[in-house]
Amino acid sequence: MIEEQYPDFTISRLGECRIPSPIKRRGFIHDEQRVLFRTTLASVQASIAQGKEPPSMEVAGAREKIYFDPSKLKCAIVTCGGICPGLNDVIRAIVLSLFHHYGVKKVFGLKYGYEGLSYRYGHAPVELTPDAVEGINEKGGTILGSSRGNQDVGEMVDTLEQMNIGLLFTIGGDGTLKGARGISEEVTRRGLKIGVIGIPKTIDNDILYIEKSFGFETAVAEAKRATYATNVEATGARNGVGLLKLMGRESGFISATTVLCDSNVNFCLIPEVPFTLKGFLAALLERVEKRGHAVVIVAEGAGQDLLQATGERDASGNVRFADIGLFLKSAISTYFREKEVELNLKYIDPSYTIRTLPANAHDSAFCLLLGHNAVHAGMTGRTNMVAGFSHGTFTHVPIPLAISGRKKIDPESGLWSSVLSTTGQESTL
Amino acid sequence: MIEEQYPDFTISRLGECRIPSPIKRRGFIHDEQRVLFRTTLASVQASIAQGKEPPSMEVAGAREKIYFDPSKLKCAIVTCGGICPGLNDVIRAIVLSLFHHYGVKKVFGLKYGYEGLSYRYGHAPVELTPDAVEGINEKGGTILGSSRGNQDVGEMVDTLEQMNIGLLFTIGGDGTLKGARGISEEVTRRGLKIGVIGIPKTIDNDILYIEKSFGFETAVAEAKRATYATNVEATGARNGVGLLKLMGRESGFISATTVLCDSNVNFCLIPEVPFTLKGFLAALLERVEKRGHAVVIVAEGAGQDLLQATGERDASGNVRFADIGLFLKSAISTYFREKEVELNLKYIDPSYTIRTLPANAHDSAFCLLLGHNAVHAGMTGRTNMVAGFSHGTFTHVPIPLAISGRKKIDPESGLWSSVLSTTGQESTL
Amino acid sequence: MIEEQYPDFTISRLGECRIPSPIKRRGFIHDEQRVLFRTTLASVQASIAQGKEPPSMEVAGAREKIYFDPSKLKCAIVTCGGICPGLNDVIRAIVLSLFHHYGVKKVFGLKYGYEGLSYRYGHAPVELTPDAVEGINEKGGTILGSSRGNQDVGEMVDTLEQMNIGLLFTIGGDGTLKGARGISEEVTRRGLKIGVIGIPKTIDNDILYIEKSFGFETAVAEAKRATYATNVEATGARNGVGLLKLMGRESGFISATTVLCDSNVNFCLIPEVPFTLKGFLAALLERVEKRGHAVVIVAEGAGQDLLQATGERDASGNVRFADIGLFLKSAISTYFREKEVELNLKYIDPSYTIRTLPANAHDSAFCLLLGHNAVHAGMTGRTNMVAGFSHGTFTHVPIPLAISGRKKIDPESGLWSSVLSTTGQESTL
Amino acid sequence: MIEEQYPDFTISRLGECRIPSPIKRRGFIHDEQRVLFRTTLASVQASIAQGKEPPSMEVAGAREKIYFDPSKLKCAIVTCGGICPGLNDVIRAIVLSLFHHYGVKKVFGLKYGYEGLSYRYGHAPVELTPDAVEGINEKGGTILGSSRGNQDVGEMVDTLEQMNIGLLFTIGGDGTLKGARGISEEVTRRGLKIGVIGIPKTIDNDILYIEKSFGFETAVAEAKRATYATNVEATGARNGVGLLKLMGRESGFISATTVLCDSNVNFCLIPEVPFTLKGFLAALLERVEKRGHAVVIVAEGAGQDLLQATGERDASGNVRFADIGLFLKSAISTYFREKEVELNLKYIDPSYTIRTLPANAHDSAFCLLLGHNAVHAGMTGRTNMVAGFSHGTFTHVPIPLAISGRKKIDPESGLWSSVLSTTGQESTL
Repeated sequence: MIEEQYPDFTISRLGECRIPSPIKRRGFIHDEQRVLFRTTLASVQASIAQGKEPPSMEVAGAREKIYFDPSKLKCAIVTCGGICPGLNDVIRAIVLSLFHHYGVKKVFGLKYGYEGLSYRYGHAPVELTPDAVEGINEKGGTILGSSRGNQDVGEMVDTLEQMNIGLLFTIGGDGTLKGARGISEEVTRRGLKIGVIGIPKTIDNDILYIEKSFGFETAVAEAKRATYATNVEATGARNGVGLLKLMGRESGFISATTVLCDSNVNFCLIPEVPFTLKGFLAALLERVEKRGHAVVIVAEGAGQDLLQATGERDASGNVRFADIGLFLKSAISTYFREKEVELNLKYIDPSYTIRTLPANAHDSAFCLLLGHNAVHAGMTGRTNMVAGFSHGTFTHVPIPLAISGRKKIDPESGLWSSVLSTTGQESTL
Repeated sequence: MIEEQYPDFTISRLGECRIPSPIKRRGFIHDEQRVLFRTTLASVQASIAQGKEPPSMEVAGAREKIYFDPSKLKCAIVTCGGICPGLNDVIRAIVLSLFHHYGVKKVFGLKYGYEGLSYRYGHAPVELTPDAVEGINEKGGTILGSSRGNQDVGEMVDTLEQMNIGLLFTIGGDGTLKGARGISEEVTRRGLKIGVIGIPKTIDNDILYIEKSFGFETAVAEAKRATYATNVEATGARNGVGLLKLMGRESGFISATTVLCDSNVNFCLIPEVPFTLKGFLAALLERVEKRGHAVVIVAEGAGQDLLQATGERDASGNVRFADIGLFLKSAISTYFREKEVELNLKYIDPSYTIRTLPANAHDSAFCLLLGHNAVHAGMTGRTNMVAGFSHGTFTHVPIPLAISGRKKIDPESGLWSSVLSTTGQESTL
Repeated sequence: MIEEQYPDFTISRLGECRIPSPIKRRGFIHDEQRVLFRTTLASVQASIAQGKEPPSMEVAGAREKIYFDPSKLKCAIVTCGGICPGLNDVIRAIVLSLFHHYGVKKVFGLKYGYEGLSYRYGHAPVELTPDAVEGINEKGGTILGSSRGNQDVGEMVDTLEQMNIGLLFTIGGDGTLKGARGISEEVTRRGLKIGVIGIPKTIDNDILYIEKSFGFETAVAEAKRATYATNVEATGARNGVGLLKLMGRESGFISATTVLCDSNVNFCLIPEVPFTLKGFLAALLERVEKRGHAVVIVAEGAGQDLLQATGERDASGNVRFADIGLFLKSAISTYFREKEVELNLKYIDPSYTIRTLPANAHDSAFCLLLGHNAVHAGMTGRTNMVAGFSHGTFTHVPIPLAISGRKKIDPESGLWSSVLSTTGQESTL
Repeated sequence: MIEEQYPDFTISRLGECRIPSPIKRRGFIHDEQRVLFRTTLASVQASIAQGKEPPSMEVAGAREKIYFDPSKLKCAIVTCGGICPGLNDVIRAIVLSLFHHYGVKKVFGLKYGYEGLSYRYGHAPVELTPDAVEGINEKGGTILGSSRGNQDVGEMVDTLEQMNIGLLFTIGGDGTLKGARGISEEVTRRGLKIGVIGIPKTIDNDILYIEKSFGFETAVAEAKRATYATNVEATGARNGVGLLKLMGRESGFISATTVLCDSNVNFCLIPEVPFTLKGFLAALLERVEKRGHAVVIVAEGAGQDLLQATGERDASGNVRFADIGLFLKSAISTYFREKEVELNLKYIDPSYTIRTLPANAHDSAFCLLLGHNAVHAGMTGRTNMVAGFSHGTFTHVPIPLAISGRKKIDPESGLWSSVLSTTGQESTL
């Protein structure tokens, strides 16, 4: 369980903090305040036995001294990738913190993701003031618009230089953070003093070294509503099967957590736990014959090995994954027909309805604090890092570490064991 | 506007009502209480000019004398066709009214629609008592299960005879009511005294002579949520188009009403108003180029003439309609590609999530009164009729009249005019 | 049941309509289109027997010719009295209709009710453009603020003259409409051409000749949530009594309708049905002893005769009514103590939480059409009238008629009979 | 910051675990798996410096060997104190885990709190089977009913002996846990082998050594709705003040967290941070005069020192606290009157509506796992402990430790600092 290699949580800095923070409140965080990466007694004892300091992360929060002079600082915010509940909350929290905590006067919103940093698209930046972000937190989506994919790094840093941006906040997932790292490296190469702070956005909650990402709780709450519908459909007809596809390309956190908050799911299929079509279909049939109906949740990234056989490739030559939901829908129908068992299958894919929601109460508070802590970090000249959260504490995580892999469900973990005990499915299908 | 032929609202009866109602309350309805079918001054004046009584419907409600002896009566309830919000409310209202208002002691629930009346399926009926229906109104779907299609009429009446049922409540749509009429006719043929009362179930609100059907309000409220998601998707990307498919095979009431309760829809396509693909696509492109995004609602039965060309037929030889939502999704994509305009299209189909909801407050109250009135009608020996609602009054409508056509949106009506003025779309596309 | 005196539905006009409507759509309403006031066959027959035309109301909607020249017209909107779901929807609908349907360019919002028409308060009007009302319909309350009470009529008309307002929309209840009538009369006295259109706002749904007012459906839906809470409290403890006070000063529509959409209420007390304290307390005790708990809904205006005995008077000398909710809370506690029966009483008053909600889907659509129809009426020079709704049709109702009394629940009606059969309470307590 | 005295997390046991667990799944927890109590690097280093093992808690979860023989074991569940979202989820999780994970066949629900263990009340226990708890998680409140206060310990243990209960689950707060400790001690005194497992229930989230309690998230989400209403009222009138009282007798977690998830609160008053009436009123007046309105949240236990002056005492001689909400309502009104400033004050107390809600998605999943872990702990013969949760891990906490004080908000903490920066209020009022 204990890694051989210790993760390196060292955060990059643009320079020394010499400017007293304008924040009046007590409760500054000192740089030496750190939270343990692992919180088991065994892991700490292992470190001690090896004569090492247990790995730990910086605790986020306002510092007594800052790097940037707020009166001269210009900041920019960009939202990239898919829509996620809470995007507007984060934008608003960053703007309000920059203005009210630090007295920054210029904050720009870049339109449509990294396109907004690329002059070839001609998207004019919008000025973000406290008035401009009033009430945006009550709305789903992002007021800045978004786009997928990265742009030319040189061009993006050119734009930052031209706009005289000192601090860039990039709200996005794995790909966005890779872009942010690229920008940060190019900034260093050019000897600029531009901080790059990532705010991790992944509705799937799959970013490494970060316990929880915003929007996840809202997504699970809405996924529970979809599970309700799926169960009503499954129980409303003879031999009813409700098949619900949920988000989760690399990891099944949404699917697994949804199982735990709804009591009616019988099968949960996630990317981390492979299954055979034969095993799954036989178990499904058995369930339907015994109980008259079944509810199945499948994460979008589950069973991708079953789909590779299709042999399709996209324009770039990459294997194109078929839609696991539609694939299973078809496979189940065929199987029941072959077995001559009546089947009333309903397939539900609520992804867009989920991700477009405004943040719920939990995520609203979380986004607020996440945005504040991103600003606190940025003002101290920290860079190439993401605002993280672990063990109930906001943290700093180096971007290179955060994108060094994907957070996944451990099939041996208590979480997955709880899922199995709730669905009643076999651990191997 | 005034029909040449007057609708015949005469309700069939099993016999004379001789038994005093056990209901203690004042407020009985007299048989001569009738509500006008048309409520415009002009229509009444036209009737008078023709020397005719203006057409009118019986007002529903408890009568002073009833036909059936509650102490001996056995009743049955069946739910048929697709799931609709409020099914369980209606079941519960019927059971409670039979027990508490009249003292009936035996009510059976037939399982899985008309299959439950056909011995070949072997579905055992369940006994429905006040305890058995406690709290079912808080759940979506139907506790009885449902199925589509009719069964052999002779077989169904055999079952009613064997079970000694005096009063059958069939909750279902157009097809179900046709089945109910068949049962009623067979009952007459055999000289039996079995009442058949329909409760009109159509989430599309498309049954003739009935102003409002249960579940419709709940459906529109949830459709508004889906429209919200569609709009967030459309505005979240450059040249975003949100395409939302809503229920409505024969009529577009859900789509049209949803437009009125959400302010962000730009095109609404319904079965009653034909459109050309060319006209729609050109208008859509124009809107996207001018405003950067567009939201489209399409009812599932819209534009079927565009799809007939596919030439596919189902097992019975009927023309099989392709899915208009997927068809438009593909057509829009192709068109924008041809025009070399970027497109970010999101397609949302929330039908199952909508129809599986529990009834909202409005529908709960409506279902309660509808169920009560169905029981009141049945206890008086009325038969071959449905429990209706018009101009704020619960009514009786003969089944043959209710199934003589479909209620549709008049493109010249105020409703459609309001939709056009809200979307801003041209009246002809 | 048939009134001796026929209500006079004649609408005042500022002058003849000579200007062609800029609305392009078909579907104009002709002035002679009228909807019957009473829709029973008997009432029509009674009129005919008396040789009279059955009483009827103008059907609302766009006309082919209008009175005001949109290019020169200035309009004003004011919201008065208590907050009600849908206020912002109505404001927005009026503004959008004036701008988009007619091309009006100047619309002012007056702040804080009639205070905004009184120069002594110095509230500057705000300009209402389509941009200014974007998205306000998603928010509860009123963006204009509100206040109670009327201001000096002369002063208010002075302000209208000074601002050169041609059309005033007053959104408010009984008192507000009285103020509107006063303004309209003063306008006539001065020979001015200022139209005054009321939009009836009463969460209690108690305005005469108007079947439904906006916000009512939203209020009932939230009242159902409060009833849920009340029932959980009542059943969560031995001898639990949940006492829920709902809005309804003069009429009990909210309370009665809430009973119908929640199945757990045992007593419903409304202003229209007097009760004795002794009778109610004895029935409550009996219920608690038999069933272990009870849920009581009391409308705020119920049982006021029981409270007059307090003899308190307010500054103006009016009898001050004590709070019936707190009064009953205390009376129940005393009674159970005297009878030495354990009591766990919980008192819930959700009024503010209810009335501050945004409109639900149903009310959103209703407010949109109501606002449109108010504009259509105003543009034709109609004045001293309110935008009404009866039998599924939007109508025009003269203000003097609308404020000639209060709409109340008839204790002999089907509505109250349904309430009694749902609660199981005696018709006389 | 680091305690001088180390908390003693040693858990009592009834005896040695010799029976192999019937659970088939992998993923058993070993007794030596422990999670650190403090997760800062500094605290661990301090322990090491003192030559001590850092304080840690047992990790909860299924063990390979258990103490009780499931085939012979009888269990009982009791819910005590106020209603809290999730009670039924916990009951259901315990029942399902006992039946499905372990094969226990007899589980009793004791009615109305500890009264159900006292024969003088004569409440018959109800048998809890998987069927009996089907769907109860969708309902607010507790199906077992509840009561406040403890009963005679001897009598309660008599009842446990008579019923032959081996394992008692007590779901309740501080007082209930004190009762549970008493039962546990009496059990030891009599040499019995009855395990007592507490499940901490505190909507206020104020139990020591337990990071999160069930129902808290649901409460905050609903409190956000109430804050919305409060803000609409405050902004809807001139000089509007919305005063919202929330739960929180000893600690202000609900109030503070609600501030973070709603952006419109201007003052937050909690028990942990004293304020002077003069300071608060002056700040409130200043805010109202500057901004035209204000929103105030007050936790029910805030400012109790201001109220002691009333001098009232209850039957037992304890100082009776007046209601801080009503007290402030009156104080604000008086102050504004004295200052001759108009005031439109609305007071909202949504406590019952909040606590009666069913658990939201987050709490549903949390209750499920909490219930499972309580069962796992109980089956191993652990006793006199509560099922806890810290740093993302379910834990075991000795009851005596959990009731040794109250968890409170540290005014120097990041949480409170975030609240201050959100409301903009001074740190001292």
